[in-house]
Amino acid sequence: MTNIPEPIDRMAAELARLPGIGRKSAQRLAYHIAALPENEVRALADALWQGRTAIRFCEECGNYTQESLCRVCADPNRSGRVLCVVRDPRDVAAMERTHDFRGKYHVLHGVLSPMDGIGPDDIRIRELLARLTDGQVDEVIIATNPDIEGEATATYLARLIKPLNVRVTRIAHGVPVGSALEYADEVTLVKAMQGRREL
Amino acid sequence: MTNIPEPIDRMAAELARLPGIGRKSAQRLAYHIAALPENEVRALADALWQGRTAIRFCEECGNYTQESLCRVCADPNRSGRVLCVVRDPRDVAAMERTHDFRGKYHVLHGVLSPMDGIGPDDIRIRELLARLTDGQVDEVIIATNPDIEGEATATYLARLIKPLNVRVTRIAHGVPVGSALEYADEVTLVKAMQGRREL
Repeated sequence: MTNIPEPIDRMAAELARLPGIGRKSAQRLAYHIAALPENEVRALADALWQGRTAIRFCEECGNYTQESLCRVCADPNRSGRVLCVVRDPRDVAAMERTHDFRGKYHVLHGVLSPMDGIGPDDIRIRELLARLTDGQVDEVIIATNPDIEGEATATYLARLIKPLNVRVTRIAHGVPVGSALEYADEVTLVKAMQGRREL
Repeated sequence: MTNIPEPIDRMAAELARLPGIGRKSAQRLAYHIAALPENEVRALADALWQGRTAIRFCEECGNYTQESLCRVCADPNRSGRVLCVVRDPRDVAAMERTHDFRGKYHVLHGVLSPMDGIGPDDIRIRELLARLTDGQVDEVIIATNPDIEGEATATYLARLIKPLNVRVTRIAHGVPVGSALEYADEVTLVKAMQGRREL
């Protein structure tokens, strides 16, 4: 028998499923939410649910969007001749914060990870290759994270893309090895883009 | 113009209102939630909203409950002769984890804090005094946090309660000064209860 009222316990259990929120923090948040005015909790719950249902994938690049095309793909000032390949939609947001890259993106929604059973068919590689068949793309910049899975994915993609006569580059290791792209600062990301090398 | 899709931005804004969740963590959580299966997000949003609406205050002590009386007040094996006064419902949960205290509680829902404009009428002091009028209570243990507001509240309550011929005690400073009751371990809390002194 727990000493925590059941509704709070259930809130805490759901919150504890989120990344970075441990059992204690989840309980603390649940008690906090139980004491909030009802309209604030309504706003929070609605934002989560409506946010989730409003979000869809860009038909072109796989980024999050509310329309059929994301803001980048719909922008006539962005060049489709250079594609930047990233793992996650949040990596697009990180890259966009630099205001440096004027091409478009391709979001893989994951990286190759045999340990986790994630193979080439589980991420959006087929969709990437499809975008390279009509000769509209000159260069693919692979901007997966500089960790084991990210590097393996980059090597794998380079092998697939080179025969299509498309230049394949990799962002420089300006991003500290072992960390995640989304935490890099704008200057580091710009340096990483500039220092990209042929694969 | 932000680079984050509006629904995710709105999720992040709501999440960032919660204690201990900064702007970056909120964004990270929002992106995570956007990628979850819809049924999991539904479960999370429902747990928060239903949890909030299911929760009410115990008519006797002010603890959180789903019934009119909380689990402690409804328990015939708990003695009403000793009341433990705490600031928050989560302090009840912390105290209950010790399995040591067999009396009942009174939850103030706050402590005196002139700096924040919180005076005696803003917390459940009147309700506490009402419980002491019929001679059913022998002792009031004041278990507010060992910080400035907690101590001031304890002193204030002692002055009000002593004329009613009720023993007033304060938990010992076994709880490290400056920290919060809810983070104390069970042993420290038991020691604090045992070492309580007359006020």
